[in-house]
Amino acid sequence: MNFQFSDKVTGLQASAIREILKYSADPEVISLAAGSPAPEALPFKELTEISKELLAEEPSIAFQYGVTEGYTPLRDEVKKLLAKRGVYNPEYDDVIITSGAQQANELSAKVLCNEGDTIIAEAPSFIGSLNAFKSYHVDLQGVTLESDGINIGELEQKLRAGGVKLVYLIPNFQNPTGNTMSWEKRQKAFELCKKYGAVILEDNPYGDLRFAGENIRSIKELDTDGSVIYSGTFSKILSPGIRVGYVCAHKDIIQKIVVCKQVADVHTAMWSQMLCYRFMKRYDIDEFIEKLHGVYAHKCGLMLEGIAKHFSSKIEYTKPEGGLFIWCTLPEGVTTQQMIDFCTTAVRDYKVAIVPGTAFTISDSDETRSFRLNFSTPTDDRIVKGVEILGKLSKEMFGE
Amino acid sequence: MNFQFSDKVTGLQASAIREILKYSADPEVISLAAGSPAPEALPFKELTEISKELLAEEPSIAFQYGVTEGYTPLRDEVKKLLAKRGVYNPEYDDVIITSGAQQANELSAKVLCNEGDTIIAEAPSFIGSLNAFKSYHVDLQGVTLESDGINIGELEQKLRAGGVKLVYLIPNFQNPTGNTMSWEKRQKAFELCKKYGAVILEDNPYGDLRFAGENIRSIKELDTDGSVIYSGTFSKILSPGIRVGYVCAHKDIIQKIVVCKQVADVHTAMWSQMLCYRFMKRYDIDEFIEKLHGVYAHKCGLMLEGIAKHFSSKIEYTKPEGGLFIWCTLPEGVTTQQMIDFCTTAVRDYKVAIVPGTAFTISDSDETRSFRLNFSTPTDDRIVKGVEILGKLSKEMFGE
Repeated sequence: MNFQFSDKVTGLQASAIREILKYSADPEVISLAAGSPAPEALPFKELTEISKELLAEEPSIAFQYGVTEGYTPLRDEVKKLLAKRGVYNPEYDDVIITSGAQQANELSAKVLCNEGDTIIAEAPSFIGSLNAFKSYHVDLQGVTLESDGINIGELEQKLRAGGVKLVYLIPNFQNPTGNTMSWEKRQKAFELCKKYGAVILEDNPYGDLRFAGENIRSIKELDTDGSVIYSGTFSKILSPGIRVGYVCAHKDIIQKIVVCKQVADVHTAMWSQMLCYRFMKRYDIDEFIEKLHGVYAHKCGLMLEGIAKHFSSKIEYTKPEGGLFIWCTLPEGVTTQQMIDFCTTAVRDYKVAIVPGTAFTISDSDETRSFRLNFSTPTDDRIVKGVEILGKLSKEMFGE
Repeated sequence: MNFQFSDKVTGLQASAIREILKYSADPEVISLAAGSPAPEALPFKELTEISKELLAEEPSIAFQYGVTEGYTPLRDEVKKLLAKRGVYNPEYDDVIITSGAQQANELSAKVLCNEGDTIIAEAPSFIGSLNAFKSYHVDLQGVTLESDGINIGELEQKLRAGGVKLVYLIPNFQNPTGNTMSWEKRQKAFELCKKYGAVILEDNPYGDLRFAGENIRSIKELDTDGSVIYSGTFSKILSPGIRVGYVCAHKDIIQKIVVCKQVADVHTAMWSQMLCYRFMKRYDIDEFIEKLHGVYAHKCGLMLEGIAKHFSSKIEYTKPEGGLFIWCTLPEGVTTQQMIDFCTTAVRDYKVAIVPGTAFTISDSDETRSFRLNFSTPTDDRIVKGVEILGKLSKEMFGE
């Protein structure tokens, strides 16, 4: 049968990372291509212990249906945490639990955007969100991302043109670049979006993973009437496999997201939510997060050291203060195809997997000579070895 | 701030059942309004035992990211089960794991339908799916549901009019009516949809819960080229709170659903999937299902007995051979408002919660004088008492 698919999914492709990940299935391949948190920093033992207790004490809550908004005790804990961080304002905001921040971001687009409405994203940005937006057939437009955040002039120009419903930003240790938006730019972007009536979707999956520099306040903290949607997740600090995130936004927006979540998956798995709740009750989450930082600082440092030592000096790279990623840019003049060749040769011939920048462009036809490195997932040995191998290849292909 | 929501969600309301469920939060209220499986039939002990083992043996699989298609060992087990039932044809079908059958149904609409495309559903039908379809701004049309399934003449008329992308059917123990589609009608509906190029979405959450009568083959068994999408779930037999369902369809359709699932929630919670897999490996799932039937037969029988004894003789009701629900219809001439009054009086003044038929109509303005009873969730005592109370009220309002 020849199926006629909807226009919104016809152009959608499975994430380009998947092709590279296929090579990564080979255990010999050193993968610097992942997006997972550091496995040694996840509290598997504590979660396992908590699981035993909750299943012994409240099996019927864990196994039966729950409400769409989320497990109430967890919602209350997340509200407390976000209030403490200045993100949640009980006067007009509400908070619900989602199946990962991915769902929060997807449903934000669904409730706000008609087909053809404009969404602005940093260029480059996180493929999962970009594809979520595209799956609602919106007009997705990129604004250049600089080392201190989105280009404000370009942003204003696009906002002024009209039709912008949503501005999607990952202000902390952005995926894929590792860049962090300055406080100045956060304020300017907020003011501009207010002025032109666009809602900001502030995605903050990596904010907890700051291992250097000073914390910068969330854009949501500037909000006085609910025009910023804030999404977060337990994926990077407790476990990605449990699929628990949350979204804080104006009550009216949350109400619409709840209706859409109800038809999407009814509710997030109860056991996963109860795990997060009990973890937050038992441990001081901020102290716990603090303790993770050593792992990330060490691994990032190790990778940066290797890059400085081995990479062709013509390659530029970011020096993130948190998160999971380093973004490398090949010398001027290198074409998109040459960058892809570099990535493909690395995994095919040298068994080191990295993600080509094309995975993060707004449009498939956008040019890029960058690639993404992940330092959180591999072991120390593999970071050292992987970067050394990449370095050699980079010098062969692009000179000392 | 005055938010402008997308057209597709503007008209969507939270499920009407929710209002009734608010009253049900009062522990004194006898709820015959639920849609949950019989709690005493769910294998909480076995699942708890399995959970301990899997977290001890494979914590890193349970807590880390998985692939969007689902946990491979579970996919393979589900494929085996569906092949055995004649539903899965490896030549052109594929099977993935979803976050409940709800997600399978929602994403089927998303990948196939543009805004304005027609989806046909039985009238009445399951609110969760109807709202999922509406959330893609399709033209949702109802076809009268009879005791042996959808009205075939009406179905053909609507198919002939053109523009029908999807025909949504719950052939076994339908929600809300408990009706089962005859084999004859299944064949006719299949042939008509083939003829007019519409895909059938066969939703089978209750098929395992047949406690009387002869099994009727799935529509998907008639399929020879992948024009039927089949969705199923572990919610009614193992646990609804774990949120695990599956969808079997042509590889091309599955591929698009995977892309949409990736942007929806990345993957279904790993622990939930591993629980289902290990349960299927340890127990003979068909034997296990067989053992559930006694519970359902007993509870349904108890409710039917009470209805026969206490209800106004002018009320008609279905006598299901499986599933969770009985559908009652008030005497001819009773208006929609009077039906709602009956339901509201029952919960407010007599503390018995039931679901008004308006929760299941295709359009908010459709008339109905029916209501839904659930026999699986309440205890025996509560079934007996609840039906007696409803019976008294029904005689007061509608005569002996």
